[in-house]
Amino acid sequence: MDYRDAFRSALEKVRSEGRYRVFADLKRHRGEFPRATWTRDDGTSADVVVWCSNDYLGQGQNPLVLDAMHQAIEEAGAGSGGTRNISGTTHYHVELERELADLHGKEAALLFTSGYVSNEASLSTLYKILPGLIVFSDALNHNSMISGIRAGAREQRKVFRHNDLEHLEELLAAAPADVPKLVAFESVYSMDGDIADLPAMVALAKKYGAMTYLDEVHAVGMYGPRGAGVAERDGVMDQIDIIEGTLGKAFGVMGGYIAADAVIVDAIRSWADGFIFTTSLPPALAAGAVASIRYLKEHDEIRAAHQERSASLKARLIKAGLPVMPSVCHIVPVLVGDAVHCKMISDILLEEHGIYVQPINYPTVPRGTERLRFTPSPAHTDEMMDRLVEALETLWVHCNIERVGGVAA
Amino acid sequence: MDYRDAFRSALEKVRSEGRYRVFADLKRHRGEFPRATWTRDDGTSADVVVWCSNDYLGQGQNPLVLDAMHQAIEEAGAGSGGTRNISGTTHYHVELERELADLHGKEAALLFTSGYVSNEASLSTLYKILPGLIVFSDALNHNSMISGIRAGAREQRKVFRHNDLEHLEELLAAAPADVPKLVAFESVYSMDGDIADLPAMVALAKKYGAMTYLDEVHAVGMYGPRGAGVAERDGVMDQIDIIEGTLGKAFGVMGGYIAADAVIVDAIRSWADGFIFTTSLPPALAAGAVASIRYLKEHDEIRAAHQERSASLKARLIKAGLPVMPSVCHIVPVLVGDAVHCKMISDILLEEHGIYVQPINYPTVPRGTERLRFTPSPAHTDEMMDRLVEALETLWVHCNIERVGGVAA
Repeated sequence: MDYRDAFRSALEKVRSEGRYRVFADLKRHRGEFPRATWTRDDGTSADVVVWCSNDYLGQGQNPLVLDAMHQAIEEAGAGSGGTRNISGTTHYHVELERELADLHGKEAALLFTSGYVSNEASLSTLYKILPGLIVFSDALNHNSMISGIRAGAREQRKVFRHNDLEHLEELLAAAPADVPKLVAFESVYSMDGDIADLPAMVALAKKYGAMTYLDEVHAVGMYGPRGAGVAERDGVMDQIDIIEGTLGKAFGVMGGYIAADAVIVDAIRSWADGFIFTTSLPPALAAGAVASIRYLKEHDEIRAAHQERSASLKARLIKAGLPVMPSVCHIVPVLVGDAVHCKMISDILLEEHGIYVQPINYPTVPRGTERLRFTPSPAHTDEMMDRLVEALETLWVHCNIERVGGVAA
Repeated sequence: MDYRDAFRSALEKVRSEGRYRVFADLKRHRGEFPRATWTRDDGTSADVVVWCSNDYLGQGQNPLVLDAMHQAIEEAGAGSGGTRNISGTTHYHVELERELADLHGKEAALLFTSGYVSNEASLSTLYKILPGLIVFSDALNHNSMISGIRAGAREQRKVFRHNDLEHLEELLAAAPADVPKLVAFESVYSMDGDIADLPAMVALAKKYGAMTYLDEVHAVGMYGPRGAGVAERDGVMDQIDIIEGTLGKAFGVMGGYIAADAVIVDAIRSWADGFIFTTSLPPALAAGAVASIRYLKEHDEIRAAHQERSASLKARLIKAGLPVMPSVCHIVPVLVGDAVHCKMISDILLEEHGIYVQPINYPTVPRGTERLRFTPSPAHTDEMMDRLVEALETLWVHCNIERVGGVAA
C-alpha cells in the first residue's frame, strides 16, 4: 500500500478546489503595527501593511503588555512546566482567571490554551455533565464549537439557521421538555460581520428552559464599556450562562477561556480532558493578558477609535463603488465571489502594492461568496486606507469584477 | 430544570472518587529552578522545591531561551494576531518548523498550539486522508492520542495491550490486508517510566504494511545524541513515519508538533481543523523554542547529568526501602497504592517539608496504583534528594505504608 499516494491525492483535492494555502512569512515591526516585513520563498523581502490581523486593537504592541511579559519571563522563566494540576498553575494563571471573572461579572473563569480548545473542550464536556443534553447550534458557529458539539450523539445536536430565532424556537419547541438544553451561538460572526440579537436569544432560551453558551471571541476587548463584549454592551451579560472568549485577538496575546458560575467552571475544570491533560500557558502570556485586559477595561476611547476606523474604511469603499458586505461591526468584508480571482487579487495586492490581506475561500465561507476580509485597527491611517482603496479600484477594473450588486450574497 | 444540581453532582462524583483537584498556586524563581514560592488560599506563602515539573532539564530558565523570547517580544510584539493562514505565520514559526524537521531528520515539521492538539488534530485528520484507516493504539496511550483516534468509527480502532507486541501482531494479522493501517504509540510512558521497544514495533508495523506514529513528548530533548528522542537513540528515527513531540516539557516553552515526509506534513497542514482554525503561537514562544532546541542539540552533557540525577534518586529511594516503581527512564514513580494516602502524603510534604509533588490518582493511573511521581532535573541537588528521602521515610512510617513488595504493581 503506497501511503504517499493517499497524502498526494488529499493535497490534490485541496488544490483542485482552489483552497491550497500558502502561508505568508511575516515579521511584524513592534511599535509600528500594522507594518511588517514579508519574506518571499526566495529569501527576498518587502515592507507591507497588514490588513487582516485579528490583533484588532494593536494590543500586541502595547508597551504595558510587553513589559508585563518581559517581567514575567524575568521572574518565572519561559514555560509553565506542567499541566495546571501538576506544577503548571502559577500565580499569573490565578490572577488572570480572577481578572476574567471580573471582566464578565461572573463568579469564576477557566483558562485554556486557546479559544479553539476552550470551545471544543467545554462544549464536549457539557454532554458528560448533563446527561441527555441537546445542543442547539447556530449554523454559522465556528469550527471549534462544532467540533465540541459533535461529541454528542446525532439526536443531541440541532442546528438552527444562522441567527434565525423562528427556526431556533421551532427546534426548541419540538424537543422534549424535560431534557437539558443549551443554545450555543456567537455574538460577532467574523466572516460576515453580523451580530446576533442577544436579548432575543436569551429570552427565547429562557422560555424553553435552555442554558446559553456565547462565543465572544471577535467581541471581547472591543465592545461594552469595559470591553467585555457584545453581551455587556447589550446589557445581558448576567443572563448568559457561559461566556467564552479569547486572549489571542483584541487582547493581543494567546489563550482562551470561559466565564460562568463557580459551580459550572469547577465542573468543567474537573471533567474537560482538553483542559486537564495539557501544559498550561506560559506565565508570560498570562501576565501579558492580565495587563491587556486591565488596560482595555479603562480605555474606552480605543474602542471608539476602532469603530471610527472601520466606519471610515467602509465609507471609502462604498464611495468607490466596491462591494462591501453589510457588516455591522468592525470587520470589513469585500465580496469577490470567485476563489481564483480572490487569490489572484490577494497576490497582486501583496506583490505590487505592499498590502497584505488573505483571500477567504471555501470552506471558511460558502462557494460564490469568496471575499477579502479587512480588519482596520486604530493604527491604520487615512493614508493607508486611501492606498488600499486605490489599489482595489485598479484591480477591480483589471479583473472586471462586479462592483455593486454582489452585496446581497 | 435546575442545571446547577447537575454541575454539583458532577463535582460530587469527582470528590467521592478522591480525585477532586486543588491546584497549587506557584511562582517559580527564575535562575533558581526547582525552587518556587507557593501561595496558600489564605494568601500566606512558603518556599518549596518543585519535584514534579515536566520542565525536565530546567530549560525554562536557560538564559539563551529567555533572551530569545525577550528579543522576539521587542522585535515583533506579544501575540501572532492570527491563524497561520491569516497573518499568523511569522518568520519565527518558519524557522522553528525548519529546526524541528532538522532535529528529527525529516523533510518537514508542523507546529500546533500544544502537544495535546498536535496528537488530537493529526490522528483525527489521518482518518480523513486515508479512507478506511485502522489505527492500532497502545492501551496506555495519552488522552490526547485517544481523543484523536476516537474520531474513527469503532471498527477503525484497535487497542493492543500496553507494549505487547504479540497482541499487536494478533490484531494486525486479523485486519484486512488491503486497508491503510497505522500503529500509534509512545516511546516513554510518563506514568510508569517504561519505554517501548521501538525497533521491534517498527519491524512489526512494516511486516504488516502499517505506518507508524510515535509520541515522543516525554523523550524529546532528553534522549539521543542531539535530543531528538528515543527513536534517535535507538537508531530508528528514519523508519518512523510520523514523530510527534512537544515544546512544553524538556524544551521548556509551550507548543506541539509533528515531523514527517513533506507530503504527509502538507496534507495534515491542509486538512487538520485543530491546526487551521486557531491562532498560532506567539512569536516569542517560537523564538524561545528554537533557542532551546539548538542548545540541547549541542549539549549532550545535560542529558548525561539528567540521567545521573534520576539514577541517584532511584538509588537513594531503594536504599531507604521505599517502593520505587521499575522505571527505565528519567521519571521516578513511587508507589503508594491508595488515593487518600497519596493525597495526604503530598499535602504533608508540601505543608511541612516544603516539597511539592502532586499525587497521581485515578483516572490518570489505575486504582490501587496511586503514586507520587518525581522528576529530578539536573538542578536538583544531592541535598534536596536527601531531604526528600528523609521526609518520605518519616511519612511512610507515619502512614504505615508498605515499603517494598508493592513494586510489582
